[in-house]
Amino acid sequence: MNAVIVSIGSELTSGLLVDTNSAFLSRELEVAGIEVAAHFTVGDEQPRIVAALRRACEQADVVIASGGLGPTPDDRTRAALAEAMGAELIEDERSFAEIEAFFRKRNYPMSRLNRVQAMRPAPAEAIPNANGTAPGIAAELGEAKVFTLPGVPGEMRAMFREHVLPRLGQAGRVILHRRVCCFGCGESSLAERIEDLMAARGDVRVGTTASSGLIAVHVSCAADSIESARRQADDILHEIRARLGEWIVAEGEDASLEAAVGELLRSGGQTLATAESCTGGMLGEMITAVPGSSEYYLGGVVSYTNAAKRDLLDVDAATLESRGAVSEAVARQMADGVRKRFAGDWGIGITGIAGPSGGTESKPVGLVFVALSDREGTHVERQIFPGDRQAVRRRAALTALNMLRKAMENL
Amino acid sequence: MNAVIVSIGSELTSGLLVDTNSAFLSRELEVAGIEVAAHFTVGDEQPRIVAALRRACEQADVVIASGGLGPTPDDRTRAALAEAMGAELIEDERSFAEIEAFFRKRNYPMSRLNRVQAMRPAPAEAIPNANGTAPGIAAELGEAKVFTLPGVPGEMRAMFREHVLPRLGQAGRVILHRRVCCFGCGESSLAERIEDLMAARGDVRVGTTASSGLIAVHVSCAADSIESARRQADDILHEIRARLGEWIVAEGEDASLEAAVGELLRSGGQTLATAESCTGGMLGEMITAVPGSSEYYLGGVVSYTNAAKRDLLDVDAATLESRGAVSEAVARQMADGVRKRFAGDWGIGITGIAGPSGGTESKPVGLVFVALSDREGTHVERQIFPGDRQAVRRRAALTALNMLRKAMENL
Repeated sequence: MNAVIVSIGSELTSGLLVDTNSAFLSRELEVAGIEVAAHFTVGDEQPRIVAALRRACEQADVVIASGGLGPTPDDRTRAALAEAMGAELIEDERSFAEIEAFFRKRNYPMSRLNRVQAMRPAPAEAIPNANGTAPGIAAELGEAKVFTLPGVPGEMRAMFREHVLPRLGQAGRVILHRRVCCFGCGESSLAERIEDLMAARGDVRVGTTASSGLIAVHVSCAADSIESARRQADDILHEIRARLGEWIVAEGEDASLEAAVGELLRSGGQTLATAESCTGGMLGEMITAVPGSSEYYLGGVVSYTNAAKRDLLDVDAATLESRGAVSEAVARQMADGVRKRFAGDWGIGITGIAGPSGGTESKPVGLVFVALSDREGTHVERQIFPGDRQAVRRRAALTALNMLRKAMENL
Repeated sequence: MNAVIVSIGSELTSGLLVDTNSAFLSRELEVAGIEVAAHFTVGDEQPRIVAALRRACEQADVVIASGGLGPTPDDRTRAALAEAMGAELIEDERSFAEIEAFFRKRNYPMSRLNRVQAMRPAPAEAIPNANGTAPGIAAELGEAKVFTLPGVPGEMRAMFREHVLPRLGQAGRVILHRRVCCFGCGESSLAERIEDLMAARGDVRVGTTASSGLIAVHVSCAADSIESARRQADDILHEIRARLGEWIVAEGEDASLEAAVGELLRSGGQTLATAESCTGGMLGEMITAVPGSSEYYLGGVVSYTNAAKRDLLDVDAATLESRGAVSEAVARQMADGVRKRFAGDWGIGITGIAGPSGGTESKPVGLVFVALSDREGTHVERQIFPGDRQAVRRRAALTALNMLRKAMENL
């Protein structure tokens, strides 16, 4: 059983909006054992929507379309589906009552524009939308089941899970995803070690993606049952761990280095404080994006000036003068200073030149010093990171987290 | 002249990665006057790539494909293009020399896997990649020009602008995009004021998208010349400003509230310091994402504990005890305290409950106090933001920036 996802909207084909619905639907379908063969994206022109729906239904068993169900004149998906089916559009009484109720409940007047949202092709069924005014449509087109959903992610996701997934029935196949996060190596050096696993094209597939130095190894296992898929996944992950062990920083679908470090701190009953210069708060933001981080994160100082480094982090004025703010000695004093100020077990200091300007021959753009301090001492790494301002900053923050992870794991 | 964009990668069709390349390419093509008819996305299976390239070339004059040019065995785009063209793959001598040089310059050993990246179909041309090891390919397939580029956004973007756009020639039509950022209103209240402009379907199109309370109004103008498109854009923007003025926080393709606030601070010779609790550094990160922010941003304190609020921000212990850390009084003292500690003109304090847990009946998840302090006084806003942890945090940071913007503009 396979699927094609169709995204509808001129904001998508003109690049004003990035399509996140297709990724969500793909993950959900694959976990349900339905392979996603392709995504199509078309603008709001009715003939293009008709053609995309027809072609999708020719090559897939299931077609999920999103977008184009709003109340305004540029929302053409209802009419396009009716045209593709050769059917008439009629008003769905229950949908109309639900849209009326939606506005009544919120004490808003119902716009005349919203009435069109209750329309559906005569031989189709409406899919209720608990969070908005756009009902979806469930229909058949040729041999395929086709579902149209609104483009608003929150509405689309709830409707897909509640009303579409249960109608897809047993597909007989399950596709399980696993993800391993690596840091501290190049993508091709990593790939060389698992080249044979990546080359295999059977039920177990291994691929990699890279972003700001973080390399994700994706594993997908297709099987007849969830138990069998899990067994396959366990086997291949055992092999991947044996080959990539030193670089693996986190495992799991929603895994991140910041969550892994947080778990190490929490389980060890330890605390952390951060002193950031070029990252400007990014490291603190990443750490506190993890719910429950207040258990181990004490806080930090963003010391964007020399005065802040001196007054809030006790960095020595003479060192700032002689070595400059971007130096090993200042990174070290920032990490020590913030650890002491916050009375934490660990202190991190980051100072560098994120660019695009501010670099010199001896201190080029991308140069970052990352320091990690605990009661026993302070360790500093000097790096020259590639990429733009945000990439340099992100690599600096990830490097700090990875130094802390390695220190806690005694690596 | 029209185009189809093809994205290649099983991480895309299984939803593990969101495709941002298609949006970038769409914007660039439309500005060059080339209408984007559709996006196709397929996995790494060679037959699917071949079919997608063939179908794209049947329906468009220009096809831009990205992804699948890496060094690993799951990178099939080179072979698929050769198959679609009925051509042989040969090694491009110049590409091979450039890949070798790339590694030599960085003092890395060249992996044998990278050699395959120098391959191209015999009747095609290699497109140099200044930032990585994957050259692109320029070829003809049927009546269409087809270009394949690597999937890594930084490499793809530079190659597209430098080597692909100049080969696309004059298309005769120009599509110009403009963007206006609004904050502080609901999307439907905003849409009501410009409903007539949004309904028009001619050469000038107006649409909206919303994210974390920030509403972007997109304008696109199609015309025979850049001058004519500019005139149309100026007219419609004049109208939009008249209707939405109070909510507009920034204008421009890359505009952001943080850059607009930075420009106000810079031009006024004023400085800012931040005290963040629930946002954990996010506000500092946003401010310092703007190059040159060290001219006006002094730094801040992430006070994730009561001790940090007392010791680094001089928040009164009795107030923390009686009102709690999430209170109007504490936000006020944080803003005042950080302004004084950093000797800045402006101080911002943010304290709230980002969730998912930690809420109570009187202080629910989403409750945030944002304070803005200057020499003349301190103003506090109390808000209950919808959404998950990251959405609440982002709305809080944006609210702080918008309060500062309004204060500086005397609104």
